Amino acid sequence: MRTRTRRPARRLSTAKADTAPIDLRSDTVTRPTPEMRKAMAAAEVGDDVLDHDPTMAELEERVAGLLGASAALWTPSGSMGNLIALMSHLQRGDSFLAPAGSHVLDAELGTAAWLAGGMPRPLEHDAGPGRVSAAAVRRAAGGDAPYYALTTRLLCLENTHNAAGGTVTRPEDHARVASAAKAAGLAVHLDGARLWHAAVKLGVPLGALTVGSDTVQVCLSKGLGAPVGSVVAGSVEFVQQARRLRKMLGGGVRQGGVLAAAGLVALDRVDRLAEDHARAATLAAGLRERGWRAPEPETNIVLVAVADLPGTLARFRESGVLASAMSGKVRLMTHADVGDAEITAALDRIGPLEQGQAGRPAVRGAS
Amino acid sequence: MRTRTRRPARRLSTAKADTAPIDLRSDTVTRPTPEMRKAMAAAEVGDDVLDHDPTMAELEERVAGLLGASAALWTPSGSMGNLIALMSHLQRGDSFLAPAGSHVLDAELGTAAWLAGGMPRPLEHDAGPGRVSAAAVRRAAGGDAPYYALTTRLLCLENTHNAAGGTVTRPEDHARVASAAKAAGLAVHLDGARLWHAAVKLGVPLGALTVGSDTVQVCLSKGLGAPVGSVVAGSVEFVQQARRLRKMLGGGVRQGGVLAAAGLVALDRVDRLAEDHARAATLAAGLRERGWRAPEPETNIVLVAVADLPGTLARFRESGVLASAMSGKVRLMTHADVGDAEITAALDRIGPLEQGQAGRPAVRGAS
Amino acid sequence: MRTRTRRPARRLSTAKADTAPIDLRSDTVTRPTPEMRKAMAAAEVGDDVLDHDPTMAELEERVAGLLGASAALWTPSGSMGNLIALMSHLQRGDSFLAPAGSHVLDAELGTAAWLAGGMPRPLEHDAGPGRVSAAAVRRAAGGDAPYYALTTRLLCLENTHNAAGGTVTRPEDHARVASAAKAAGLAVHLDGARLWHAAVKLGVPLGALTVGSDTVQVCLSKGLGAPVGSVVAGSVEFVQQARRLRKMLGGGVRQGGVLAAAGLVALDRVDRLAEDHARAATLAAGLRERGWRAPEPETNIVLVAVADLPGTLARFRESGVLASAMSGKVRLMTHADVGDAEITAALDRIGPLEQGQAGRPAVRGAS
Amino acid sequence: MRTRTRRPARRLSTAKADTAPIDLRSDTVTRPTPEMRKAMAAAEVGDDVLDHDPTMAELEERVAGLLGASAALWTPSGSMGNLIALMSHLQRGDSFLAPAGSHVLDAELGTAAWLAGGMPRPLEHDAGPGRVSAAAVRRAAGGDAPYYALTTRLLCLENTHNAAGGTVTRPEDHARVASAAKAAGLAVHLDGARLWHAAVKLGVPLGALTVGSDTVQVCLSKGLGAPVGSVVAGSVEFVQQARRLRKMLGGGVRQGGVLAAAGLVALDRVDRLAEDHARAATLAAGLRERGWRAPEPETNIVLVAVADLPGTLARFRESGVLASAMSGKVRLMTHADVGDAEITAALDRIGPLEQGQAGRPAVRGAS
Repeated sequence: MRTRTRRPARRLSTAKADTAPIDLRSDTVTRPTPEMRKAMAAAEVGDDVLDHDPTMAELEERVAGLLGASAALWTPSGSMGNLIALMSHLQRGDSFLAPAGSHVLDAELGTAAWLAGGMPRPLEHDAGPGRVSAAAVRRAAGGDAPYYALTTRLLCLENTHNAAGGTVTRPEDHARVASAAKAAGLAVHLDGARLWHAAVKLGVPLGALTVGSDTVQVCLSKGLGAPVGSVVAGSVEFVQQARRLRKMLGGGVRQGGVLAAAGLVALDRVDRLAEDHARAATLAAGLRERGWRAPEPETNIVLVAVADLPGTLARFRESGVLASAMSGKVRLMTHADVGDAEITAALDRIGPLEQGQAGRPAVRGAS
Repeated sequence: MRTRTRRPARRLSTAKADTAPIDLRSDTVTRPTPEMRKAMAAAEVGDDVLDHDPTMAELEERVAGLLGASAALWTPSGSMGNLIALMSHLQRGDSFLAPAGSHVLDAELGTAAWLAGGMPRPLEHDAGPGRVSAAAVRRAAGGDAPYYALTTRLLCLENTHNAAGGTVTRPEDHARVASAAKAAGLAVHLDGARLWHAAVKLGVPLGALTVGSDTVQVCLSKGLGAPVGSVVAGSVEFVQQARRLRKMLGGGVRQGGVLAAAGLVALDRVDRLAEDHARAATLAAGLRERGWRAPEPETNIVLVAVADLPGTLARFRESGVLASAMSGKVRLMTHADVGDAEITAALDRIGPLEQGQAGRPAVRGAS
Repeated sequence: MRTRTRRPARRLSTAKADTAPIDLRSDTVTRPTPEMRKAMAAAEVGDDVLDHDPTMAELEERVAGLLGASAALWTPSGSMGNLIALMSHLQRGDSFLAPAGSHVLDAELGTAAWLAGGMPRPLEHDAGPGRVSAAAVRRAAGGDAPYYALTTRLLCLENTHNAAGGTVTRPEDHARVASAAKAAGLAVHLDGARLWHAAVKLGVPLGALTVGSDTVQVCLSKGLGAPVGSVVAGSVEFVQQARRLRKMLGGGVRQGGVLAAAGLVALDRVDRLAEDHARAATLAAGLRERGWRAPEPETNIVLVAVADLPGTLARFRESGVLASAMSGKVRLMTHADVGDAEITAALDRIGPLEQGQAGRPAVRGAS
Repeated sequence: MRTRTRRPARRLSTAKADTAPIDLRSDTVTRPTPEMRKAMAAAEVGDDVLDHDPTMAELEERVAGLLGASAALWTPSGSMGNLIALMSHLQRGDSFLAPAGSHVLDAELGTAAWLAGGMPRPLEHDAGPGRVSAAAVRRAAGGDAPYYALTTRLLCLENTHNAAGGTVTRPEDHARVASAAKAAGLAVHLDGARLWHAAVKLGVPLGALTVGSDTVQVCLSKGLGAPVGSVVAGSVEFVQQARRLRKMLGGGVRQGGVLAAAGLVALDRVDRLAEDHARAATLAAGLRERGWRAPEPETNIVLVAVADLPGTLARFRESGVLASAMSGKVRLMTHADVGDAEITAALDRIGPLEQGQAGRPAVRGAS
């Protein structure tokens, strides 16, 4: 199997294969591939604070090209990439719109509010899970406001939308919503941590999904398997400012080329996300067969509604399947370190739903 | 007419009575009464930063008593009172719950987020307009969260709820919701800028509406007619900290007793709010008779759904009636400087709804 | 005695004149005069948040004129006036220059740093107490800095300089320093809380002391005796932004005209500050005669170097003289509520320096 | 030559050896060694946000042990390490003490002020360059302050002190100052980015230099040559909080073990810093022979006072020697990628001081 040859390090540490837990908590748990490790060891590097590390520069240029942006900047995490974008768009007294449950609202420790300075206005998913309509954006953007009122300044979208279950926004829908935002005077940021998934799912180039976005963040360590790092892209002026903001936040690194080298390898792995989508579909179907409420996933995220979320997570863990809590449901994510065998084993371990386990639980999750 | 003898200053400046606009934008537009002016002129004062201005002390003690709190602190505005309370409850990485449309969410320029540091989680009004249920609070509070997740720390209630149309929460409902919050480990702040209205409407003492609240803000210049000032109340420790926070924000004043003296007079005027409620009911009934969509108000706020909000506000203004935008509707507020004659005149000026004016408008309001 | 007719309220509350403490802690302790009280009672007012209170407008226009500024805005305190100016000049990543010991550095709870966002760079008083040279400003402003370095953006001056002992900067010196700052690309804010003192001392119009300043704050309750309030002035654009910032901080008030009316009366009292200067000179001379280290004051602030600051303050208090700590010294301030008789009495109460009381103390003060 | 075998990657990219610039701007420019690259390629890793990456854990444990701390946490940069420590020590209304010119004051874009919330109080170097006395700390800490005054909460030391020229604080001096701070109720943070240098210079274990410090930051990429990363250490409770703060700032990384592996190799390279110190001494002596004002360095930083700083830096660059600006002087740093040959060549390239080049320049530097 391909996946076997790809993950020797993991194989080593999970010799006791049968009992090793199957980790479906997040697609961030993937180990770097041998190719990545080799690239890291061989990377040409420089001091990326004082100069521009050459491998960093190559990665940033390549990602900017993929996204159709003028320039890009590596960040240690997607959270920092989003934060830098929001810091550049927002100031005190501004508010911003985002679909309810967005990562910037729920999973970044409030930095959009207290550090970037924006009062959030969550929007209902009125255009399908994870998606908002142009009309809703127009309505929420409002018009002229008196001097003592919040100024709506930004629309922050997320594709795929994590908390909604890895849901995909299509190019034409993204463009329409972004266009409505621009017409209302708002900037548009796209949290594209898993934008690769949307592109693969839809069979469109990445750039088709960023139209009308002023800034975009994509993550190299979710799904693509790089050990560390995201990239935030936008105009040349934005990236200039972003570099300064990154230094402020302590995200300026020295010989970052060792990480960028892994990122460059990761960019070659986008196509394999289709496997993760297929496995997620298999997993959800298997769960439904076993009585669980697991709707067909759009990409690599399976959400399962249960009556007792903490209890279910604990039982899963005991049976050897690691899952996480998200939107009050069990979240299972497929990724590069999980093959067909693991999906089969996970279904076996989880087994059929017992009486009283299904339902709408009350516990809020994150990650 | 009583109201005439009460407002000599205003009468003087609106001699051209017939054409003077009738100001229903907010109950903050009221002029201080002669009694207030006299009290201000005679107030005993001290340096309230270095010592404790004696009239300030008297006002704070009296309000604390009314609210059933251990101590209280005057602030130049309700916004500062709320902000100080939120700054004392929240820190970076915290989130707080509040009914959608709350003043702290929509009308304080985002300070709850960027200055107090809390990521807001607006709650739907699942228990009637402006009201949330204990179950919703329990659900939103969540349980244990991993180290990298937001910690829900505070429930912020508002009674009466301005944006919902001056809606009233009853003592037993407040107590149940506050109790659920406390059981879930949350602090409770009550934005009671117009708590007097709720108390008068329900015929209960003010203290009956604060049960389970750690901090409460009440406003002296909304409805009660003091020219400047609010009071925030809580424990002795809270007020100690609040005094320091007030100084930080630039709200520490010197001989503030001149304002506190007016506040003390204002406290004697609570009962007259019943008149404002009656006039608001008259106004809403009159509007409905004229075809407008103006539901029966709970207190002194009349919200009117219209198709074209900016257009309607402009037409009202031209006809001599000043209104404001709130929750996408026209807001009309009754207050001490508006008597029966003004209500009648306002209805005359507004006149019947013309074709196409009613509807659900799209413009967001504030104040 | 003149002072008697001026302060009836105080006389009333200090009938036991002989034993009443003489309060020299600050010139903020003054009570409003009967004229002020009368003006407050008669003030024409409006809602200064929604509209522009007419008396506020009059005060702001008059102060702007005195300062040679295009526009001005009332604030509840000098701290808020300074803060608003700094918030408008600074952003994250900026630094600002200010003479060591400035009020914005030491006596505003750090808001210049954490709220306005500037990293302070205190400057030595290389041009006399409270004064910095143009050369020092040029040197500190620096030149081009790399993207990851602080950007020096603002010079914040203080005239008279409180912590240096009420020291005066002359128009030509202010202009030269401000000019150096502008040439180096810095904005200039003048904390003129006691600028009136400098103008009276030098016999120049207030506007002569603001040349080259982008923003100026003057205080109505220090020396001039208004109960509450300061004014911050600058360009029309600045004041527009300042109004929004004031609302953010909770400093927007409703019928503030009642306070502005007292402020207008206070503006007529500038000339009487010469009396305070004369009394401060008398006080310092008397202290020196009694062996204390009290250099000739430039305006109304007498600083006395002592060996044991807390001990000396306590002994003064016991003997009936209230003083405060400032720059590690005893600070005594003359003001409108202290006449010749009180100065004589204060010297009697303090008495001669005893062995071991003089020296260079170690305790930091404030206010 | 040893250095040749150590830096194959660099050799590859600088084939045109004779004309390649000699980079003495900072010791952060070093390339990872082959051993580091090998370790990175072989590192065992995990998801350090969800779990604890095993190599990260090993690195953190080892550094904690070296520093005598209970626990430690990796951060992407020294700036983030310092920032996290300051965020944990400070809150709004606090001030902190630090020797003038400290990295946290001048080279971290003001985050100590606007993000950690502390108003800085720079201390003169009254105990030698980069060093402050216990008496100065006691004096600056002050005593009880009124509620409206800043609270001094933290002493932040730096060893070696970069801006002072890599100056060393001895264990007994550090202990005495830290002890004075603790006695005055202050917490103590040690910015030990180059603490290794002090330990090597003094021949003492690292832990001898941290006595009395609540938190310590050490950098793996300055001098030791790791490509990316610092470590901040303290109590178990501090590290727990620090992990959350790191996530807030966007510094939580996934398979960070690839970087930690290089860090572990770096820890074996501490002793070789003696070579850098020797070369710095050679460089300074050579400069003095050539007429430059370059005092004997204490560690690896040579500061040269010049009349025209930008001009001198430009001339150096043209001649093939890269230097930076620091404290208004030229800064030259020795590091692992600079051998004896480069020092000789640098001196040749710089050559003798020409008329008018020496002096006290006015430009502020950073890094």
